[in-house]
This record gives sequence, C-alpha cells and structure tokens, in this order.
Amino acid sequence: MKATTRASLTTIQAQDPLPSWNDGKAKRSITAFVAKVTKEGSPDFVPVAERIATFDNDGTLWCEQPMPVQFYFALDRMQALAPQHPEWKDKEPFASLLKGDVKTALAGGDRALLELMTATHAGMTTVEFEQIVKDWIATAKYPKFQQPYTACVYQPMVKLLSYLRANGFKTFIVSAGGIEFMRAWVEKVYGIPPEQIVGSSIKTKFEMRDGKPVLVRLPELSFYDENDGKAIGINQHIGRRPIAAFGNSDGDREMLEYTKAGAGARLAMLVLHDDAAREYAYGPAQGLPDTEMGAFTPALYEQAKKDGWTVISMKDDWKPVFAFDP
Amino acid sequence: MKATTRASLTTIQAQDPLPSWNDGKAKRSITAFVAKVTKEGSPDFVPVAERIATFDNDGTLWCEQPMPVQFYFALDRMQALAPQHPEWKDKEPFASLLKGDVKTALAGGDRALLELMTATHAGMTTVEFEQIVKDWIATAKYPKFQQPYTACVYQPMVKLLSYLRANGFKTFIVSAGGIEFMRAWVEKVYGIPPEQIVGSSIKTKFEMRDGKPVLVRLPELSFYDENDGKAIGINQHIGRRPIAAFGNSDGDREMLEYTKAGAGARLAMLVLHDDAAREYAYGPAQGLPDTEMGAFTPALYEQAKKDGWTVISMKDDWKPVFAFDP
Repeated sequence: MKATTRASLTTIQAQDPLPSWNDGKAKRSITAFVAKVTKEGSPDFVPVAERIATFDNDGTLWCEQPMPVQFYFALDRMQALAPQHPEWKDKEPFASLLKGDVKTALAGGDRALLELMTATHAGMTTVEFEQIVKDWIATAKYPKFQQPYTACVYQPMVKLLSYLRANGFKTFIVSAGGIEFMRAWVEKVYGIPPEQIVGSSIKTKFEMRDGKPVLVRLPELSFYDENDGKAIGINQHIGRRPIAAFGNSDGDREMLEYTKAGAGARLAMLVLHDDAAREYAYGPAQGLPDTEMGAFTPALYEQAKKDGWTVISMKDDWKPVFAFDP
Repeated sequence: MKATTRASLTTIQAQDPLPSWNDGKAKRSITAFVAKVTKEGSPDFVPVAERIATFDNDGTLWCEQPMPVQFYFALDRMQALAPQHPEWKDKEPFASLLKGDVKTALAGGDRALLELMTATHAGMTTVEFEQIVKDWIATAKYPKFQQPYTACVYQPMVKLLSYLRANGFKTFIVSAGGIEFMRAWVEKVYGIPPEQIVGSSIKTKFEMRDGKPVLVRLPELSFYDENDGKAIGINQHIGRRPIAAFGNSDGDREMLEYTKAGAGARLAMLVLHDDAAREYAYGPAQGLPDTEMGAFTPALYEQAKKDGWTVISMKDDWKPVFAFDP
C-alpha cells in the first residue's frame, strides 16, 4: 500500500472507525471505551497485553434462529449416519428427528440434545471431524436466507472485531457452541485463530493408529461453556479477565458480570434482536417467543439497565446486518 | 531505537541468533528448522499463524530437581496452613511431610500427591490464589542455589523463546504444573502471556460474594496435563498442532509424538540433564536416579534416537545455564 493511500485511510478511520454502525448510544459507548483504555496516561489506560475482549457467537456474531447453526449440522450428520443406525428409528431423540419433529425430540431436554450431539460429533478423530465440518459449512445453506451459514454473520460485529484488534485488543470467542465445530471455520470468517476460541467440548482419547498418534472424539461431555461455564472457561482458557464482553442471551450473563467485576473501565454489551424485517425479533422485542436456546429474558434486560450494560439494537444501531441484502 | 542501531543489531543477530548456545547439532537443528519454515517459497514454509511452539516447563525451562518447584510451594503452604489443621498431625501425607519425611509421605503415590496439592491449592478464589503464588515466588529461594526460583530458569531456553517469537512463532507452555501456579509469574519471566499457558488444573466454582462474582478453587482435579494429557491439552487449548515441541522427560513423549506426526517440517527436542557441575545429571546421564517426577528414561532416549528427536546436552550445548554463576 502506498504511504498516501495509507494516510488517507487512516484519516477516514479517524473520522469514523465504525461506519457500519449508526450514530447512537451503542456506537458511542464502544468508541468512548476504546478511546479511554488506549490513551496512554489516562487513568483508564490498559496495557495492550490486558486488552482482552470476549464475544459470544450464536446470536451475537451470527444468526441463531430458529435454531443454532450447529444444530442444523447435527441434523444433517444424523441423516448421513442414519443408514448405519437402523435402531434410531425406534429411539428418541432420533426417531422424532428423522421424521422432522424437532419439538417432540427436544422434549427430552438437555439429555436428548446431548444424545444427538454426541452421536453426531463423536467417534472420529479430531482431524476427521475438522474435515467433516469444513465440507459441510462449504455447501450447507441457512434456510431463511438461502445463503451459506458463514455469510450469515453480522457485518457490524465483524467490523467491531477488526476495530478492537486495530486498537491492540486480543479478540476471543466464548460460546456454548462446540470448540472444534467453531475452529473449523472461525479463523477465515472472523479473523480469530483457534487458540482464541473457547467453547463446549467433548472428551478426546490419545491413540496410536498405524504408528501415528491421533485424538479420538468420545461421546462424553467434557465442558459446557454456558452461563457460569463462560466465566470458568474464560479463567481456564484465557487466564485473564476480559475488559470487554459481548453477548445476547441469559447464557452470557455470568461472562458479562465477571467482566464488569474487574477494576477500571469495562464494557459489557448485549445484542437485541429487534429487527423482524432484516433478521428476527425475539426476546424483549417480543416478535418471536424465547426458546431454550438463545433466550434474552426480561430479567436480563432489567439487569442490563441496572448494571450499565449497553443494549445494541439491531434495527437502530446497525446499518447493514449482513454482507448480502436480506 | 535509531535506524543505525537497529541495523547493526540485525546484523549481529544474522551472524549468531543464539549466542548463548554452543555450536553443535542442537543449535544447528534449531536454526536450520527456523530458516526453512520461515523462508517464503520454500517447500517447508509455514505461515505465521501456524508457527506454534510448545515447551514443557519443569526440567525444560527451569530446574526440577530434587523436586518440582510447585512441590516446594505446596510444602510451604502446608506449613502455613498447619495451625488451622491439627488433624494433619495424624493424617498422611501431611503427618510425614510435617516431619520433613517426603519419601514416606509420597509412598502413597498419586493419591498422596493429589491430597497435598488440593489441600494447599484449593479453598480460595482464583484472585487470592494468584496473590499467594506471587507473594511466595517473590521471596522463596531454590535450596541448591539460594537464588529466587525465577532466577533458576535456563538462559539458553529463554533466549530460544525470544528467537522463535522474533521469527513469528507463538510460544506456549504445556506443563504438568498447575496452570494458575504458572500464570502468576510466567509472563514476566518467559514473556509468555497467561492465555498461552496450558497446564494441570483443578475445578472452579462461580459464586457471588458481596454482589461480585468470584471463582472459587475446589479440591477436585479437572485436568492432568501430562503424557497423553499433553496432546489432549494442546488440542483443547490451542486447537492447532505445534510444529516444534521441547521437553525433557517421559511425560513429554506424547507431545513430541503428536508434534512430529503433522505434515511438513517439525522439530522435537529433549533437554538432557548431564551437567552435574552446573545443575544436575540425571536420567540417561546417570548422575542422579530417575524420580517419579521428571524421568528421562532409557526408553525415551532410544525413541529420541530412532524418531529423529534432537537431544540437547546441557553440558555441551549451553554456554551459560543460568543468569547467575552456579
């Protein structure tokens, strides 16, 4: 890049570091926060090494309705594996799922979900699983928009990730989603490397196959990265308290509380899905009933107001939502 | 820094990137490896994002004899806590340890060790524990050299860490040591941030205390980062296979195997303690019997020869061992 080009880009950026965000309280809380923690000599200055920002994924960085993307992956995997499992025809949650009846299948609660997830996510090596996810995500499409899932990421949030990194932040994902499911595509889409992804995981087993070590994925939950698990996962994985955290549901509550409890300037934000025209309206926006997965409850909304967490209105705060026109 | 100063430093570095290492097979395998993976267009070129190097800690980056440093920490903590635990006088492993009889105490094997570790490492918040470790390591001294423990790090390895980072590597610690024990001091000593430390851990519990969230350390093992645990921990924590790995004992075997099993150029190295004059001679060097903790067995030595792992001789390959004169 020529020096002159770089200089003019810098000028544009200085004028508006987040052009995909409408001017408003949300955008101003981000830019004001970044300005004060990056200003040397300011009482709120934070050294680069401590500029940790954590992001939930489903509903915060990409779509999660009517079901989280990984659930679509699990259903497609189940269909692919069904011929090898004739017993699934009489066994829940598979029997209902094979008939397309998600509601009955998930009436079995967490246990039914865990059964589906382990049956479709375990039994192969980590290298094989990565390839399965890569192959799937390269072709599968999000039903609502008929776009690749990786196109259904929120542009203003992708720009926010870049903006934070340009200001010395290390950006992490902290999601209830599967850590290895995310790692297969996240780096390309968000610019976040695998070592900065915290998620739920199943156990793995070290094994020698043809004289080479492999890690085999076992049908047993190792860690569930949701609610208190997010604070625990952050401590375990990052070992440093974030100074900024972004979520959209009750599952992110403890991450935001943990972030805000540190000394000095802190930023906690929640994405509110209030844009039925361009995506969905659910949670306090009332357009769609809360689901077990991805609930933004009225209680969370109240806590946000009380504790100074900034709510991002998809409708009012974001210029585009996606890179495509929804 | 002035441009001229920088230029002359670059020249010096080009001449000898690792002046604290004697010329020999070990040094040459490091520099040859770095040269080929960083040379664009070379068949062995590795993009910066994939230049992951993992280091064992005890016996690889700092002293581990006659006992790992964290064990000294546990003993000091036990003494400090003993007045609150009169029952320890009649309870192993505490009873023997309080009398200074480590051998009898550890005859109880892993279970005795785990009991000592959880009794001294759990029951406080993560923030409190960090402070306890910081206070201890600021004053405690390594018996053999009467130096602070953090001075007992191997200078050639510290320089190697810097050299790798200067060549675009991300350096990680992967140790059986406690992840939060290490995080309290590692950044300052090795330049490795907390999020790049993988270690053994105990469980934590999210709790509200005076309206603020804390993580309380529980007396229950969560993950043991040794042997197969090292490969599992690398996959869980880093999510990318290292291209270079450094260890010194049987506990590092699987980490080195896992590293070497990837495609392309790989570097696997083992520190051999054969320097009774400046540190210790143990393992295949026969100067000191193998201990349960930190064993470099003859079988590992044979595997290193067979699989092309390079053995670093402390005596022959390192100019200084420590920053002080041992």
